[in-house]
Amino acid sequence: MSAVAAIVGVGTTGYRTDGAAGPDLAYDAIGLALADAGLGAADVDGVVKYSVDSSASVEMIAANLGLSDLGYWAEVPHGGGGSCATVQHAVAAIAGGFADVVVCFRAFTPSDFGEGAKHNSATLWARRSGVRDFMRGAGWTSMFDTFALACQRHMYDFGTTPEQLGAVVKACRRHAGTNPLALRPEPVTVEEYLEAPLVVGPLREADCAILPTFGACAVVLTSAERARDLRATPAYVLAAAASSGERTLPYWEMHPFRRGEITHFASRQVATRLFGSAGLSVDDVDVAQIYDCTSYTLLAQLEDYGFCAKGEGGPFAEHGALELGGRLPVNTHGGHLGEAYVHGFTHILEAVAQIRGESVNQVPGADVVLVTGGAPGPSSALLLGAGR
Amino acid sequence: MSAVAAIVGVGTTGYRTDGAAGPDLAYDAIGLALADAGLGAADVDGVVKYSVDSSASVEMIAANLGLSDLGYWAEVPHGGGGSCATVQHAVAAIAGGFADVVVCFRAFTPSDFGEGAKHNSATLWARRSGVRDFMRGAGWTSMFDTFALACQRHMYDFGTTPEQLGAVVKACRRHAGTNPLALRPEPVTVEEYLEAPLVVGPLREADCAILPTFGACAVVLTSAERARDLRATPAYVLAAAASSGERTLPYWEMHPFRRGEITHFASRQVATRLFGSAGLSVDDVDVAQIYDCTSYTLLAQLEDYGFCAKGEGGPFAEHGALELGGRLPVNTHGGHLGEAYVHGFTHILEAVAQIRGESVNQVPGADVVLVTGGAPGPSSALLLGAGR
Repeated sequence: MSAVAAIVGVGTTGYRTDGAAGPDLAYDAIGLALADAGLGAADVDGVVKYSVDSSASVEMIAANLGLSDLGYWAEVPHGGGGSCATVQHAVAAIAGGFADVVVCFRAFTPSDFGEGAKHNSATLWARRSGVRDFMRGAGWTSMFDTFALACQRHMYDFGTTPEQLGAVVKACRRHAGTNPLALRPEPVTVEEYLEAPLVVGPLREADCAILPTFGACAVVLTSAERARDLRATPAYVLAAAASSGERTLPYWEMHPFRRGEITHFASRQVATRLFGSAGLSVDDVDVAQIYDCTSYTLLAQLEDYGFCAKGEGGPFAEHGALELGGRLPVNTHGGHLGEAYVHGFTHILEAVAQIRGESVNQVPGADVVLVTGGAPGPSSALLLGAGR
Repeated sequence: MSAVAAIVGVGTTGYRTDGAAGPDLAYDAIGLALADAGLGAADVDGVVKYSVDSSASVEMIAANLGLSDLGYWAEVPHGGGGSCATVQHAVAAIAGGFADVVVCFRAFTPSDFGEGAKHNSATLWARRSGVRDFMRGAGWTSMFDTFALACQRHMYDFGTTPEQLGAVVKACRRHAGTNPLALRPEPVTVEEYLEAPLVVGPLREADCAILPTFGACAVVLTSAERARDLRATPAYVLAAAASSGERTLPYWEMHPFRRGEITHFASRQVATRLFGSAGLSVDDVDVAQIYDCTSYTLLAQLEDYGFCAKGEGGPFAEHGALELGGRLPVNTHGGHLGEAYVHGFTHILEAVAQIRGESVNQVPGADVVLVTGGAPGPSSALLLGAGR
């Protein structure tokens, strides 16, 4: 099957640890993405945003950027899990004939997770039901606790080591080193990594995407046909897929309690769908931008996407395999661990950069790039290609 | 062009003026819609909800109904304006190959509009910016004030009369009279209507969808091919369309202040897109389910959808034209004014009933049915057909 749509424009505000309000970030990133595509506001007829993104409503985007007569708009739940699902929605809109030019964006400020932020139904439910209070009483104070628990189990079941987590961190930080946008460009050795204290065992500070990022990213999609006539090299969407997982739970913090296999993510189902619909296999992937809210999250997805067998993510990641020149370069922008935290959207931009041959850590001949959304809840992913 | 998808199942909890919490309503309506389609939870791989619907998250729906491995989920902004856009999203998901069986639903309780409810970005913005406080200080306390202002202008510009508004109310209430689910089944004559006091001039209580409804509705869609093999008569989606309008504003309460022509809605653009993509005209419509948060909203849409010229909605609506046996029967379930208020979703169910020949006010030979979403903000609509 040939691609229906392509990413033809990308934009980012860059990233800071303090900064502007969400609306300005969103407008700026979208404006830059349109300029990059050589398109104007009058061309846009679709907008897709994260439902947790409280920076700007579709009306605000339209009013402030001069968009008129939009034919399609959507909000995608699930935070980082829905990052690639925004592009999936754009492809669906184009496939259905409901829009020709669709903007997807994420504007992130740390207040998105604060008490005054917009809440999705899941967090509302967690508050109403008291689940969150229960979990906080038991010591759960952030999402990192959940990943730490799963990581602990992974170590117990499969012998995964701190050194292997350190190898993931080292790869992301090395790549960040050549990225002028990176908030954390200092390289780190595995030895230095191991010397740092634990934050929530077995995770250290460098394992966690805790940079308080202010920044926004946007992409512009259009049909594969129209993409050829535009000025940027198209990044064709060879496949887009999402999955809520085998056994969906109403609130992600509950996963460690109730899920039989806590070291698996919905990424397994995403992978099956993704490679199946593209008619490609994991061997076709030249470089991967893998969601890394923690180093462990990335490591576990190596297994879920089939780069190695279950339990072998640790050995796979060792000895520079994830670094430029290695077996599978990942997060060539530095990822959440090295560049900035915009809820998975930076990974989409980096995948496009690889397809265009413009990455700060270019992988020669990168024709097929995997991008993945977050875990442990519902998840999503893309395969972008230089050819259709 | 032939239809990509069809509505193959419908479900409603029925409607009460007090009642259960949102989650139970949502689960019940979805369960009934699946049973109506002859499908089970295992068949579902897509869920679309209103973003303002705080009844249940996608995860809650999945967990409580036993849905597994969903491949597509979306939230649609804009309240009643997005009602038909939920179906548009389902069609997009099916067209894009991202889902085979998609559930769309709306569970409504009056607390959805309360202070503790989930807020979309637009309402958050209105609070932050102080626009709402300004409007309240000027006497704006509900959405009915906005419609009253536009209606006033319509009367001034075009000579629309209270009797003509009464004719809209009379039609909806007559149709509600034979609907066992209707909360307001008592008929009303135009004379009785005129005797009631004004609530916000020129609107009376009977002009406004102010019933505090507790209730939920759901529909199930699948591909047009698969629809033929299922037990219910398919209601094919001949067209689905949405528009943010010519000049999108960040908050709907501002429309009366800033819009040049306050008696027009985005429905004009929706209509152009809708009929254009279906290759049909307004003359093909046998019966219409038109969003009626107020009688005036319905009247103005008669113009926007082209059933009459601009300004002639009033004369068009007079003398029973909108009633069963009239020129254009509308809201054959009673609409928001006679049946219940579930943010436009009841209209979708009634359109399917007409296609199936099962309406409580069946229009003989109803082959093409128009359903419209709300106004005055972004809006959406469907054309459902008995044939592809």
